[in-house]
Amino acid sequence: MQMTPAKTKLLNAALRIVRTNGYEATSVDELCRDAGVTKGAFFHHFKSKEDLAVAAAGYWNEVTGKLFAAAPYHDYEDPLDQLIAYIDFRATLLDGRSIPEATCLLGTMVQETYESNPAIRAACFGGITSHAETIADIIRAAKARHAPKATWSAESLALHTQAVIQGGFILAKAKDDLALARDSILHLRRYVELLFHHAKED
Amino acid sequence: MQMTPAKTKLLNAALRIVRTNGYEATSVDELCRDAGVTKGAFFHHFKSKEDLAVAAAGYWNEVTGKLFAAAPYHDYEDPLDQLIAYIDFRATLLDGRSIPEATCLLGTMVQETYESNPAIRAACFGGITSHAETIADIIRAAKARHAPKATWSAESLALHTQAVIQGGFILAKAKDDLALARDSILHLRRYVELLFHHAKED
Repeated sequence: MQMTPAKTKLLNAALRIVRTNGYEATSVDELCRDAGVTKGAFFHHFKSKEDLAVAAAGYWNEVTGKLFAAAPYHDYEDPLDQLIAYIDFRATLLDGRSIPEATCLLGTMVQETYESNPAIRAACFGGITSHAETIADIIRAAKARHAPKATWSAESLALHTQAVIQGGFILAKAKDDLALARDSILHLRRYVELLFHHAKED
Repeated sequence: MQMTPAKTKLLNAALRIVRTNGYEATSVDELCRDAGVTKGAFFHHFKSKEDLAVAAAGYWNEVTGKLFAAAPYHDYEDPLDQLIAYIDFRATLLDGRSIPEATCLLGTMVQETYESNPAIRAACFGGITSHAETIADIIRAAKARHAPKATWSAESLALHTQAVIQGGFILAKAKDDLALARDSILHLRRYVELLFHHAKED
Protein backbone atom coordinates (compact mmCIF):
# COMPACT_ATOMS: atom_id res chain seq x y z
CA MET A 1 0.00 0.00 0.00
CA GLN A 2 1.34 3.41 -0.94
CA MET A 3 1.06 5.76 2.03
CA THR A 4 0.39 9.44 1.49
CA PRO A 5 3.11 11.73 2.78
CA ALA A 6 0.80 13.23 5.44
CA LYS A 7 0.09 9.78 6.85
CA THR A 8 3.77 8.87 6.93
CA LYS A 9 4.62 12.19 8.54
CA LEU A 10 2.05 11.61 11.24
CA LEU A 11 3.31 8.08 11.89
CA ASN A 12 6.89 9.32 12.16
CA ALA A 13 5.73 12.09 14.48
CA ALA A 14 4.02 9.48 16.65
CA LEU A 15 7.22 7.42 16.83
CA ARG A 16 9.18 10.48 17.90
CA ILE A 17 6.77 12.09 20.32
CA VAL A 18 5.31 9.00 21.99
CA ARG A 19 8.79 7.64 22.65
CA THR A 20 9.69 10.98 24.21
CA ASN A 21 6.62 11.75 26.30
CA GLY A 22 4.47 8.64 26.34
CA TYR A 23 1.10 7.99 24.74
CA GLU A 24 -1.25 9.84 27.03
CA ALA A 25 0.84 13.03 27.13
CA THR A 26 0.88 13.18 23.33
CA SER A 27 -1.94 15.26 21.83
CA VAL A 28 -3.36 15.23 18.33
CA ASP A 29 -2.47 18.93 18.09
CA GLU A 30 1.16 18.23 18.90
CA LEU A 31 1.31 15.35 16.42
CA CYS A 32 -0.10 17.60 13.68
CA ARG A 33 2.32 20.41 14.56
CA ASP A 34 5.31 18.06 14.58
CA ALA A 35 4.23 16.43 11.32
CA GLY A 36 3.42 19.76 9.72
CA VAL A 37 -0.07 18.64 8.70
CA THR A 38 -3.53 20.01 9.41
CA LYS A 39 -5.98 18.50 11.85
CA GLY A 40 -8.19 17.82 8.86
CA ALA A 41 -5.42 15.68 7.38
CA PHE A 42 -5.07 13.84 10.69
CA PHE A 43 -8.73 12.89 10.79
CA HIS A 44 -8.72 12.02 7.12
CA HIS A 45 -6.20 9.27 7.90
CA PHE A 46 -7.06 8.32 11.49
CA LYS A 47 -10.32 8.12 13.39
CA SER A 48 -8.66 9.05 16.66
CA LYS A 49 -5.37 9.24 18.55
CA GLU A 50 -5.93 5.61 19.53
CA ASP A 51 -6.36 4.68 15.88
CA LEU A 52 -3.05 6.41 15.09
CA ALA A 53 -1.35 4.58 17.98
CA VAL A 54 -2.47 1.21 16.64
CA ALA A 55 -1.25 2.18 13.16
CA ALA A 56 2.01 3.46 14.65
CA ALA A 57 2.62 0.08 16.30
CA GLY A 58 2.27 -1.58 12.89
CA TYR A 59 4.45 1.07 11.25
CA TRP A 60 7.07 0.62 13.99
CA ASN A 61 7.25 -3.07 13.21
CA GLU A 62 7.55 -2.35 9.51
CA VAL A 63 10.42 0.10 10.06
CA THR A 64 12.29 -1.96 12.67
CA GLY A 65 11.51 -5.16 10.76
CA LYS A 66 13.48 -3.80 7.78
CA LEU A 67 16.31 -2.78 10.10
CA PHE A 68 16.53 -6.26 11.62
CA ALA A 69 16.13 -8.02 8.27
CA ALA A 70 19.13 -6.11 6.91
CA ALA A 71 21.25 -6.49 10.06
CA PRO A 72 24.57 -8.37 9.94
CA TYR A 73 23.61 -11.03 12.47
CA HIS A 74 21.97 -13.10 9.74
CA ASP A 75 25.33 -13.53 8.00
CA TYR A 76 26.70 -16.14 10.40
CA GLU A 77 26.34 -19.77 9.46
CA ASP A 78 26.00 -21.08 13.03
CA PRO A 79 22.66 -20.05 14.55
CA LEU A 80 24.32 -19.64 17.97
CA ASP A 81 26.68 -17.09 16.40
CA GLN A 82 23.61 -15.41 14.88
CA LEU A 83 22.00 -15.20 18.30
CA ILE A 84 25.06 -13.69 19.96
CA ALA A 85 25.46 -11.29 17.03
CA TYR A 86 21.78 -10.31 17.38
CA ILE A 87 22.37 -9.42 21.03
CA ASP A 88 25.47 -7.44 20.07
CA PHE A 89 23.45 -5.70 17.36
CA ARG A 90 20.88 -4.64 19.96
CA ALA A 91 23.73 -3.04 21.93
CA THR A 92 25.05 -1.20 18.87
CA LEU A 93 21.56 0.23 18.28
CA LEU A 94 22.11 2.26 21.46
CA ASP A 95 25.26 3.93 20.13
CA GLY A 96 24.97 7.57 19.17
CA ARG A 97 21.25 7.66 19.85
CA SER A 98 19.30 9.66 22.41
CA ILE A 99 17.02 7.77 24.79
CA PRO A 100 13.86 8.59 22.79
CA GLU A 101 15.63 7.44 19.62
CA ALA A 102 16.99 4.24 21.17
CA THR A 103 13.96 3.03 23.08
CA CYS A 104 10.90 1.09 22.01
CA LEU A 105 7.57 2.53 20.96
CA LEU A 106 5.72 -0.65 21.90
CA GLY A 107 7.13 -1.05 25.40
CA THR A 108 6.52 2.62 26.09
CA MET A 109 2.91 2.58 24.89
CA VAL A 110 1.88 -0.69 26.51
CA GLN A 111 3.26 0.32 29.90
CA GLU A 112 0.54 2.93 30.38
CA THR A 113 -2.29 1.68 28.11
CA TYR A 114 -2.44 -2.06 28.88
CA GLU A 115 -5.46 -1.76 31.12
CA SER A 116 -7.30 1.16 29.52
CA ASN A 117 -6.81 0.44 25.85
CA PRO A 118 -7.09 -3.16 24.62
CA ALA A 119 -6.52 -2.24 20.94
CA ILE A 120 -3.17 -0.56 21.67
CA ARG A 121 -2.21 -3.36 24.05
CA ALA A 122 -2.94 -5.98 21.39
CA ALA A 123 -0.99 -4.04 18.74
CA CYS A 124 2.00 -3.79 21.08
CA PHE A 125 1.80 -7.48 21.93
CA GLY A 126 1.62 -8.37 18.25
CA GLY A 127 4.65 -6.24 17.49
CA ILE A 128 6.78 -7.56 20.34
CA THR A 129 5.92 -11.19 19.70
CA SER A 130 6.34 -11.03 15.94
CA HIS A 131 9.90 -9.76 16.40
CA ALA A 132 10.51 -12.29 19.20
CA GLU A 133 9.36 -15.04 16.85
CA THR A 134 12.18 -14.20 14.42
CA ILE A 135 14.61 -14.61 17.34
CA ALA A 136 12.89 -17.81 18.47
CA ASP A 137 13.58 -19.25 14.99
CA ILE A 138 17.29 -18.57 15.46
CA ILE A 139 17.27 -19.96 19.00
CA ARG A 140 15.37 -23.06 17.84
CA ALA A 141 18.10 -23.76 15.28
CA ALA A 142 20.86 -23.05 17.82
CA LYS A 143 19.20 -25.32 20.34
CA ALA A 144 18.80 -28.14 17.82
CA ARG A 145 22.48 -27.94 16.97
CA HIS A 146 24.09 -27.20 20.34
CA ALA A 147 21.67 -27.92 23.16
CA PRO A 148 19.11 -30.47 22.02
CA LYS A 149 18.48 -31.75 25.57
CA ALA A 150 18.06 -28.35 27.20
CA THR A 151 14.82 -27.96 29.13
CA TRP A 152 14.21 -24.28 28.34
CA SER A 153 12.18 -23.46 25.27
CA ALA A 154 13.31 -21.32 22.34
CA GLU A 155 10.10 -19.28 22.55
CA SER A 156 10.61 -18.52 26.22
CA LEU A 157 14.25 -17.52 25.76
CA ALA A 158 13.30 -15.31 22.80
CA LEU A 159 10.69 -13.48 24.88
CA HIS A 160 13.24 -13.16 27.67
CA THR A 161 15.65 -11.38 25.30
CA GLN A 162 12.91 -8.82 24.69
CA ALA A 163 12.15 -8.51 28.42
CA VAL A 164 15.80 -7.77 29.18
CA ILE A 165 15.96 -5.12 26.46
CA GLN A 166 12.70 -3.50 27.60
CA GLY A 167 13.77 -3.55 31.23
CA GLY A 168 17.16 -2.13 30.34
CA PHE A 169 15.35 0.77 28.67
CA ILE A 170 13.46 1.49 31.89
CA LEU A 171 16.65 1.61 33.95
CA ALA A 172 18.28 3.76 31.28
CA LYS A 173 15.36 6.19 31.39
CA ALA A 174 15.49 6.28 35.20
CA LYS A 175 19.21 7.11 35.22
CA ASP A 176 19.04 9.18 32.02
CA ASP A 177 21.88 7.04 30.73
CA LEU A 178 21.70 4.33 28.07
CA ALA A 179 24.72 2.63 29.68
CA LEU A 180 22.31 0.77 31.96
CA ALA A 181 20.53 -0.73 28.95
CA ARG A 182 23.91 -1.71 27.51
CA ASP A 183 24.88 -3.39 30.80
CA SER A 184 21.74 -5.51 30.83
CA ILE A 185 22.29 -6.52 27.22
CA LEU A 186 25.78 -7.67 28.24
CA HIS A 187 24.28 -9.77 31.03
CA LEU A 188 21.87 -11.25 28.48
CA ARG A 189 24.80 -12.10 26.21
CA ARG A 190 26.60 -13.81 29.08
CA TYR A 191 23.43 -15.72 29.98
CA VAL A 192 23.06 -17.07 26.45
CA GLU A 193 26.72 -18.07 26.33
CA LEU A 194 26.47 -19.83 29.69
CA LEU A 195 23.24 -21.58 28.70
CA PHE A 196 24.84 -23.09 25.62
CA HIS A 197 28.20 -23.70 27.30
CA HIS A 198 26.39 -25.53 30.07
CA ALA A 199 24.39 -27.59 27.57
CA LYS A 200 27.59 -28.74 25.89
CA GLU A 201 28.89 -30.00 29.24
CA ASP A 202 25.88 -32.24 29.80
CA MET B 1 6.37 11.74 60.73
CA GLN B 2 2.77 10.78 61.35
CA MET B 3 0.84 11.04 58.11
CA THR B 4 -2.72 12.23 58.18
CA PRO B 5 -5.24 9.71 56.90
CA ALA B 6 -6.10 11.91 53.87
CA LYS B 7 -2.46 11.99 52.80
CA THR B 8 -2.10 8.24 53.19
CA LYS B 9 -5.33 7.68 51.29
CA LEU B 10 -4.10 9.84 48.42
CA LEU B 11 -0.75 8.04 48.30
CA ASN B 12 -2.48 4.67 48.25
CA ALA B 13 -4.81 5.92 45.52
CA ALA B 14 -1.78 7.01 43.50
CA LEU B 15 -0.20 3.57 43.85
CA ARG B 16 -3.41 1.94 42.64
CA ILE B 17 -4.42 4.28 39.85
CA VAL B 18 -1.01 5.12 38.39
CA ARG B 19 -0.11 1.42 38.22
CA THR B 20 -3.39 0.82 36.40
CA ASN B 21 -3.49 3.73 33.97
CA GLY B 22 -0.10 5.41 34.06
CA TYR B 23 0.86 8.82 35.40
CA GLU B 24 -0.39 11.12 32.69
CA ALA B 25 -3.83 9.50 32.45
CA THR B 26 -4.34 9.90 36.19
CA SER B 27 -6.12 13.10 37.18
CA VAL B 28 -6.21 14.88 40.52
CA ASP B 29 -10.01 14.53 40.43
CA GLU B 30 -9.77 10.78 40.04
CA LEU B 31 -7.20 10.52 42.82
CA CYS B 32 -9.48 12.50 45.15
CA ARG B 33 -12.51 10.40 44.20
CA ASP B 34 -10.63 7.15 44.73
CA ALA B 35 -9.17 8.34 48.04
CA GLY B 36 -12.51 9.74 49.16
CA VAL B 37 -11.00 13.14 49.97
CA THR B 38 -11.74 16.66 48.78
CA LYS B 39 -9.66 18.59 46.30
CA GLY B 40 -8.95 21.03 49.13
CA ALA B 41 -7.40 18.17 51.10
CA PHE B 42 -5.32 17.21 48.07
CA PHE B 43 -3.85 20.69 47.71
CA HIS B 44 -3.36 20.94 51.45
CA HIS B 45 -0.94 18.01 51.21
CA PHE B 46 0.47 18.32 47.69
CA LYS B 47 1.32 21.30 45.53
CA SER B 48 0.49 19.43 42.33
CA LYS B 49 0.00 16.02 40.77
CA GLU B 50 3.74 15.99 40.14
CA ASP B 51 4.38 16.67 43.82
CA LEU B 52 2.12 13.72 44.72
CA ALA B 53 3.95 11.50 42.22
CA VAL B 54 7.31 12.29 43.80
CA ALA B 55 5.85 11.59 47.25
CA ALA B 56 4.24 8.39 45.94
CA ALA B 57 7.65 7.16 44.73
CA GLY B 58 9.01 7.65 48.26
CA TYR B 59 5.93 6.04 49.80
CA TRP B 60 6.26 3.10 47.39
CA ASN B 61 9.79 2.50 48.58
CA GLU B 62 8.69 2.71 52.19
CA VAL B 63 5.90 0.15 51.65
CA THR B 64 7.89 -2.24 49.47
CA GLY B 65 10.99 -1.71 51.64
CA LYS B 66 9.09 -3.14 54.61
CA LEU B 67 7.89 -6.05 52.49
CA PHE B 68 11.42 -6.90 51.37
CA ALA B 69 12.90 -6.38 54.83
CA ALA B 70 10.45 -8.94 56.26
CA ALA B 71 10.81 -11.42 53.38
CA PRO B 72 12.14 -14.92 54.01
CA TYR B 73 15.17 -14.62 51.71
CA HIS B 74 17.17 -12.99 54.50
CA ASP B 75 16.95 -16.16 56.58
CA TYR B 76 19.55 -18.13 54.60
CA GLU B 77 23.09 -18.17 55.89
CA ASP B 78 24.74 -18.40 52.47
CA PRO B 79 24.37 -15.13 50.52
CA LEU B 80 24.05 -17.08 47.27
CA ASP B 81 21.04 -18.89 48.77
CA GLN B 82 19.70 -15.47 49.79
CA LEU B 83 20.05 -14.22 46.24
CA ILE B 84 18.27 -17.21 44.72
CA ALA B 85 15.57 -16.96 47.40
CA TYR B 86 15.17 -13.25 46.61
CA ILE B 87 14.56 -14.09 42.96
CA ASP B 88 12.06 -16.78 43.97
CA PHE B 89 10.40 -14.26 46.28
CA ARG B 90 9.97 -11.86 43.36
CA ALA B 91 8.16 -14.66 41.50
CA THR B 92 5.87 -15.38 44.46
CA LEU B 93 4.91 -11.69 44.55
CA LEU B 94 3.12 -12.30 41.24
CA ASP B 95 0.91 -15.02 42.69
CA GLY B 96 -2.74 -14.15 43.20
CA ARG B 97 -2.22 -10.54 42.16
CA SER B 98 -3.67 -8.63 39.22
CA ILE B 99 -1.24 -6.90 36.87
CA PRO B 100 -1.76 -3.46 38.45
CA GLU B 101 -1.20 -5.01 41.89
CA ALA B 102 1.90 -6.97 40.83
CA THR B 103 3.72 -4.35 38.78
CA CYS B 104 5.98 -1.48 39.76
CA LEU B 105 4.94 2.12 40.34
CA LEU B 106 8.44 3.40 39.58
CA GLY B 107 8.95 1.57 36.29
CA THR B 108 5.49 2.60 35.15
CA MET B 109 5.96 6.28 35.99
CA VAL B 110 9.48 6.67 34.66
CA GLN B 111 8.59 5.08 31.33
CA GLU B 112 6.46 8.06 30.32
CA THR B 113 7.90 10.93 32.42
CA TYR B 114 11.67 10.48 32.05
CA GLU B 115 12.02 13.25 29.51
CA SER B 116 9.27 15.62 30.60
CA ASN B 117 9.56 15.45 34.37
CA PRO B 118 13.04 15.38 35.94
CA ALA B 119 11.71 15.34 39.52
CA ILE B 120 9.64 12.20 38.96
CA ARG B 121 12.47 10.60 37.00
CA ALA B 122 14.91 11.26 39.85
CA ALA B 123 12.47 9.90 42.44
CA CYS B 124 12.00 6.72 40.39
CA PHE B 125 15.73 6.31 39.92
CA GLY B 126 16.30 6.78 43.65
CA GLY B 127 13.69 4.16 44.45
CA ILE B 128 14.94 1.58 41.97
CA THR B 129 18.59 1.99 42.93
CA SER B 130 18.01 2.01 46.67
CA HIS B 131 16.29 -1.36 46.39
CA ALA B 132 18.95 -2.61 43.96
CA GLU B 133 21.62 -1.59 46.49
CA THR B 134 20.15 -4.00 49.04
CA ILE B 135 20.47 -6.77 46.45
CA ALA B 136 23.98 -5.63 45.51
CA ASP B 137 24.97 -6.14 49.17
CA ILE B 138 23.78 -9.74 48.97
CA ILE B 139 25.50 -10.29 45.62
CA ARG B 140 28.73 -8.73 46.92
CA ALA B 141 28.77 -11.23 49.79
CA ALA B 142 27.89 -14.13 47.46
CA LYS B 143 30.61 -13.08 45.05
CA ALA B 144 33.22 -12.81 47.81
CA ARG B 145 32.38 -16.30 48.98
CA HIS B 146 31.72 -18.15 45.73
CA ALA B 147 33.05 -16.18 42.77
CA PRO B 148 35.85 -13.88 43.95
CA LYS B 149 37.53 -13.82 40.53
CA ALA B 150 34.40 -13.13 38.49
CA THR B 151 34.67 -10.09 36.24
CA TRP B 152 31.06 -8.90 36.54
CA SER B 153 30.25 -6.45 39.32
CA ALA B 154 27.71 -6.94 42.09
CA GLU B 155 26.20 -3.51 41.36
CA SER B 156 25.71 -4.32 37.69
CA LEU B 157 24.16 -7.72 38.39
CA ALA B 158 21.85 -6.16 40.99
CA LEU B 159 20.63 -3.56 38.49
CA HIS B 160 20.19 -6.34 35.93
CA THR B 161 17.87 -8.22 38.31
CA GLN B 162 15.69 -5.10 38.37
CA ALA B 163 15.85 -4.71 34.58
CA VAL B 164 14.65 -8.28 34.10
CA ILE B 165 11.78 -7.79 36.51
CA GLN B 166 10.77 -4.48 34.91
CA GLY B 167 11.00 -5.94 31.41
CA GLY B 168 9.00 -8.98 32.46
CA PHE B 169 6.26 -6.62 33.63
CA ILE B 170 6.14 -5.01 30.17
CA LEU B 171 5.74 -8.35 28.43
CA ALA B 172 3.13 -9.39 30.99
CA LYS B 173 1.18 -6.19 30.34
CA ALA B 174 1.43 -6.72 26.58
CA LYS B 175 0.08 -10.26 26.82
CA ASP B 176 -2.23 -9.48 29.72
CA ASP B 177 -0.67 -12.41 31.53
CA LEU B 178 1.78 -12.33 34.43
CA ALA B 179 3.15 -15.71 33.31
CA LEU B 180 5.56 -13.84 31.02
CA ALA B 181 7.01 -11.95 33.99
CA ARG B 182 7.34 -15.26 35.84
CA ASP B 183 9.15 -16.81 32.87
CA SER B 184 11.71 -14.01 32.76
CA ILE B 185 12.30 -14.29 36.50
CA LEU B 186 13.01 -18.00 35.96
CA HIS B 187 15.55 -17.11 33.28
CA LEU B 188 17.13 -14.68 35.72
CA ARG B 189 17.31 -17.41 38.36
CA ARG B 190 19.01 -19.73 35.86
CA TYR B 191 21.44 -16.98 34.87
CA VAL B 192 22.49 -16.42 38.48
CA GLU B 193 22.92 -20.15 39.05
CA LEU B 194 25.01 -20.50 35.89
CA LEU B 195 27.13 -17.46 36.75
CA PHE B 196 28.09 -18.90 40.12
CA HIS B 197 28.34 -22.48 38.85
CA HIS B 198 30.67 -21.25 36.12
CA ALA B 199 32.76 -19.27 38.64
CA LYS B 200 33.27 -22.43 40.72
CA GLU B 201 34.62 -24.24 37.66
CA ASP B 202 37.31 -21.64 37.04
